[in-house]
Amino acid sequence: MQLFHHTFCPHSRFVRLAFGEYGMDPALIEERVWERRPDFLALDPAGATPVVVEENGLAVPGAAIIAEYLDETRGLALGDRRLLPEDLSGRIEVRRLTSWFNDKFFTEVTEPLVREKVYKRYMKREQGGGPPDMAAIRAARANIRYHLHYIGWLVKARNWIAGERLSYADLAAAAHISCADYLGDVPWDEDETAKIWYARIKSRPSFRPLLAVTMAGMPPAATYADLDF
Amino acid sequence: MQLFHHTFCPHSRFVRLAFGEYGMDPALIEERVWERRPDFLALDPAGATPVVVEENGLAVPGAAIIAEYLDETRGLALGDRRLLPEDLSGRIEVRRLTSWFNDKFFTEVTEPLVREKVYKRYMKREQGGGPPDMAAIRAARANIRYHLHYIGWLVKARNWIAGERLSYADLAAAAHISCADYLGDVPWDEDETAKIWYARIKSRPSFRPLLAVTMAGMPPAATYADLDF
Repeated sequence: MQLFHHTFCPHSRFVRLAFGEYGMDPALIEERVWERRPDFLALDPAGATPVVVEENGLAVPGAAIIAEYLDETRGLALGDRRLLPEDLSGRIEVRRLTSWFNDKFFTEVTEPLVREKVYKRYMKREQGGGPPDMAAIRAARANIRYHLHYIGWLVKARNWIAGERLSYADLAAAAHISCADYLGDVPWDEDETAKIWYARIKSRPSFRPLLAVTMAGMPPAATYADLDF
Repeated sequence: MQLFHHTFCPHSRFVRLAFGEYGMDPALIEERVWERRPDFLALDPAGATPVVVEENGLAVPGAAIIAEYLDETRGLALGDRRLLPEDLSGRIEVRRLTSWFNDKFFTEVTEPLVREKVYKRYMKREQGGGPPDMAAIRAARANIRYHLHYIGWLVKARNWIAGERLSYADLAAAAHISCADYLGDVPWDEDETAKIWYARIKSRPSFRPLLAVTMAGMPPAATYADLDF
């Protein structure tokens, strides 16, 4: 099995965490989507990471579709650690909050942060590269605060983000926050409950590969890999 | 059952078409999301249409989550007219193309068109109202062309957009196109196969309620409700 991903694509990180929880270890292939490689576009006409390719050649594109696919093909084997619950209202809540982070948090925080601070360094000018737009970065840094409070509020009422059990919603939230945290853009003093939740998920074995990431010329923030931050 | 929707929200139209195919007729409640009504935010903290509310009070927010929910609760009853196929690769393809229209087409075409031409008329200045941004409208009109070709290319190789049977992907594509068509922004001479596909889906009973829509002060384009356009 292969996973086409990018180190700083939060949706790819979400899928890597999910694979970790499933106990699976696909081959990782780093894709720079802005190069619009024809072989990659043949796998996924939308040209976006992540894309999973099964051994039989079946391509599964996009975080939400991969999550459904893994649950449909391997979910039962996880037993009471299943990442999408079996009951209807639990499924709605996990899907709602997974989408909250993969779509809303992405638009408001990780997409601008990663675009301005990471992707623009590697893109040529005609691909959209250039110096970062500081106004976009400031807006993302303001937005992340209310998301941290929302996480704190949810976790206070429950055990994990979408309920009593760890779910896809926690993996999505943690994946996006880990990108912002690498860049030093998570104000951890903002919400103590959110910080404790992140410390819990950060210490899971599935998280280790993400904490080992370093990018040449762009080291992580001081406490990025620190379990006691 | 209730559906909180907006007449020009393409995701709401997608859900209305789905209800039509399921033979269901929920009560429609028009929601102006920019007013951020507290009771609506309590149903869906993201504050976006569509939201379905079951008779028992269960709220289901968002087009993709509603589609999964309806399939899980009523899909089997549709038999061979089921909108999400049973086989794994069919499910991936339907979800991929449903997301193509509900996410990508939305960002590139319907979101800017509807925001600039419709929502801005009804919003106060402090809510983001004002005269339309013509550059955004021109970009959306350019983008819709390649989507029409993609529909034509898919339908030529298959019977419907995601395979041999009508699926959620057709409903998503048609819902978004119907918004652009109301506004007179679909260049129907661009792709004959796409036009024939739209004529087929437009003549389905589930489509009738959408064709009956008219907005005070903003009549539809001349051929909007015309089955032979």
